[in-house]
Amino acid sequence: MSGPPLDATHDPARRSFVPRANLPGADFPLQNLPLGVFRASSQDRPRIGVAIGERVLDLGGAVESGLLELPGRLATACHGATLNGLMAEPAERRHDLRMALSEALLEGSRFSQDRTLQDKLLRAQSEVQLLLPAMIGDYTDFYASVFHASNVGSMFRPDNPLLPNYKWVPIGYHGRASSVVVSGTPVRRPAGQSRAPDAAAPSFGPSRMLDYELEVGAWVAGENPLGTPVPLAEAEQRIFGVSLLNDWSARDLQSWEYQPLGPFLAKNFVTSVSPWVVTLEALAPFRAPAFTRPAGDPAPLDYLAAPANEAFGGFGITLEVSLQTARMREQGVPPARLSRSDFRQMYWTLAQLLTHHASNGCNLRPGDLLGSGTVSGPTREERGCLLELSWRGKEPLALPGGETRTFLEDGDEVVLAGYCERDGAVRIGLGECRGLVRAG
Amino acid sequence: MSGPPLDATHDPARRSFVPRANLPGADFPLQNLPLGVFRASSQDRPRIGVAIGERVLDLGGAVESGLLELPGRLATACHGATLNGLMAEPAERRHDLRMALSEALLEGSRFSQDRTLQDKLLRAQSEVQLLLPAMIGDYTDFYASVFHASNVGSMFRPDNPLLPNYKWVPIGYHGRASSVVVSGTPVRRPAGQSRAPDAAAPSFGPSRMLDYELEVGAWVAGENPLGTPVPLAEAEQRIFGVSLLNDWSARDLQSWEYQPLGPFLAKNFVTSVSPWVVTLEALAPFRAPAFTRPAGDPAPLDYLAAPANEAFGGFGITLEVSLQTARMREQGVPPARLSRSDFRQMYWTLAQLLTHHASNGCNLRPGDLLGSGTVSGPTREERGCLLELSWRGKEPLALPGGETRTFLEDGDEVVLAGYCERDGAVRIGLGECRGLVRAG
Repeated sequence: MSGPPLDATHDPARRSFVPRANLPGADFPLQNLPLGVFRASSQDRPRIGVAIGERVLDLGGAVESGLLELPGRLATACHGATLNGLMAEPAERRHDLRMALSEALLEGSRFSQDRTLQDKLLRAQSEVQLLLPAMIGDYTDFYASVFHASNVGSMFRPDNPLLPNYKWVPIGYHGRASSVVVSGTPVRRPAGQSRAPDAAAPSFGPSRMLDYELEVGAWVAGENPLGTPVPLAEAEQRIFGVSLLNDWSARDLQSWEYQPLGPFLAKNFVTSVSPWVVTLEALAPFRAPAFTRPAGDPAPLDYLAAPANEAFGGFGITLEVSLQTARMREQGVPPARLSRSDFRQMYWTLAQLLTHHASNGCNLRPGDLLGSGTVSGPTREERGCLLELSWRGKEPLALPGGETRTFLEDGDEVVLAGYCERDGAVRIGLGECRGLVRAG
Repeated sequence: MSGPPLDATHDPARRSFVPRANLPGADFPLQNLPLGVFRASSQDRPRIGVAIGERVLDLGGAVESGLLELPGRLATACHGATLNGLMAEPAERRHDLRMALSEALLEGSRFSQDRTLQDKLLRAQSEVQLLLPAMIGDYTDFYASVFHASNVGSMFRPDNPLLPNYKWVPIGYHGRASSVVVSGTPVRRPAGQSRAPDAAAPSFGPSRMLDYELEVGAWVAGENPLGTPVPLAEAEQRIFGVSLLNDWSARDLQSWEYQPLGPFLAKNFVTSVSPWVVTLEALAPFRAPAFTRPAGDPAPLDYLAAPANEAFGGFGITLEVSLQTARMREQGVPPARLSRSDFRQMYWTLAQLLTHHASNGCNLRPGDLLGSGTVSGPTREERGCLLELSWRGKEPLALPGGETRTFLEDGDEVVLAGYCERDGAVRIGLGECRGLVRAG
């Protein structure tokens, strides 16, 4: 693929001098270097940060102090209040930034000797407020797991679970940019119209089928002018990196409103993303074969077809959902894992999603957000939402402590997590995406 | 309703000193005062303007020169490069601006005597470049004409034309903000996937069923915090004004991709809006009874129900579509009118659309754009798109000069126009929304 290759920054032998960055199981070792936006206090202005171990490096401060020497526009972008400026930089400049960061944070670097500068530029992640990484121009949500689409389809359309277009068209729809929030923002239970199966008329009230959806969010880099498609070979250069994404969904509102123009109020009340953007460069060691289409499935049309020698269009990212109810929290019961799935199981790759999106000339801009769609796998343990796990409420889930769930209740906290592991590579993590449900 | 009342600015006796502003049939008399953004040359910065007759008043210049005396934040907003700042102002401040403009442009005003200042602040509309009026955070498109929904539904689902939710839920979906362009921007024919009715597989290529949709676009004012709905009684204060909107649609792409999540690439390649935003204040004389639901239709649920004494939730706006083909242009044949319909025929009012949108707590921000959906009426002459007019291509339209059309061909120019007329009020117009189709 056209995406970033492996280079010295991925060398497993490289270690950071920053405490706890090299611990086994750490999300943010020197090989990761995800970017985000933080504020040291509510009075402080938003600043770009880099996660290393349990610290955050002030990127603008690092440039200002001379720790990072970067060309002009790239240096300016490091001082932004969002990642949009960095997302507008070409792939080569983004690579320059990664190289410079990897050098600065390496064991034995000049920075490792300078405690004064460390005190100035490195803060504890637990002591800062993490913000939305970018100003999102447009948010698009896809539906790229054939397992999710088949499960949901069989509930809503038992005779016709997977529609005829699914294996040809990367199905997607536009979501709401204004209500995308960062991990930790409380989620108010939305009200809306729904109609009970046996009711003559709908009624308006708080959703009784509130759900999460486990997704990967991809942040767009660069811009194609309106009218200019993006060839598949160039698509990965147009992806800055990924976060975790929770596409909160009110299933009762959704089933009543969604025909014929798709989900609207069932989805746009809030969408949560994790604060750290793991770059495509950091994901390079975790390339995986694209999903193997079962025999009989059509090949993608030419504009979505990778050359035969490109077998690694996917990324192996393990994704987990955990739930902690209010009672579990009170009783000190830790969050219980509900599912675990792998991003490599998606029917369409991120590059295919982006190329399809721009295939009609639609302009994608730096900071746009693409949701993958719920990441489900073929087994029950790999179902990425409660709609699937409880099979539309028919099969309640048992939780530690004796409670059960079909859909979310007030006080429930959903925690998404993701990480990449492979022999010969240093594990990296995506961090967490949390949301606690409040009464509407 | 909660919207702007009639006041002195609507008095039909008031005339502007600006030439041609008072001609019968003029779009922009003193009673209109629509706002937009213009650039005097490609080197100039974007400025806010007010249309009066065939001129545009430089709003920032009018404040700077002392012609308009406005309170601080409002004055600052007049210097913006978009209308977003003015759209963030409360309804009372927006009213102050209208009053001040109406006084300044009145016959006999101080400004009418000051030719030097006029030369500085008034330019010919034909000599400036009109730009997109606002930075659009989110664009939402509705489907509020029951006639359009019934016509389209009967083509795509003959057994089930109007879905059971239609008369309860103001159906809407999120559109693409990045590809909203101003009138006059060429429209490239999009490519995409479609499947012929008898084909085993889809193919990728230029759309062969390119269509326009005649809509009204409403620009959002003010902001409700995430989680906070907007009661119907407050909804009109949240609408800054309206433009014409052309929701260009590739019908062949649409019918293949739209299930189950709605239109995506069939719509997001471009959406055109007219440059002038006619404020809700200017529309006050043209209030009309909301659409009368036929006997047997359900009443709106409480959150969408206007008090019984509020009979004027609609607006009477006459809307027209004209088409000029390349050959007509060469032969000097003027654009031919294809349809004429009235906005008062919509099943849901703008206020209901906005209140529904925020009913789940979705935050709407200044500069957000709401499309009404295709404005069609009950008769053939009132069908607001070619899909309806040609009944999905089965009934070609005859054009002056001998050509026929089922869908748009390269070189066709579509012109939307809109105006309000009523006895006892001065006619106002929305101007035009143009788009010329180019080969993809």
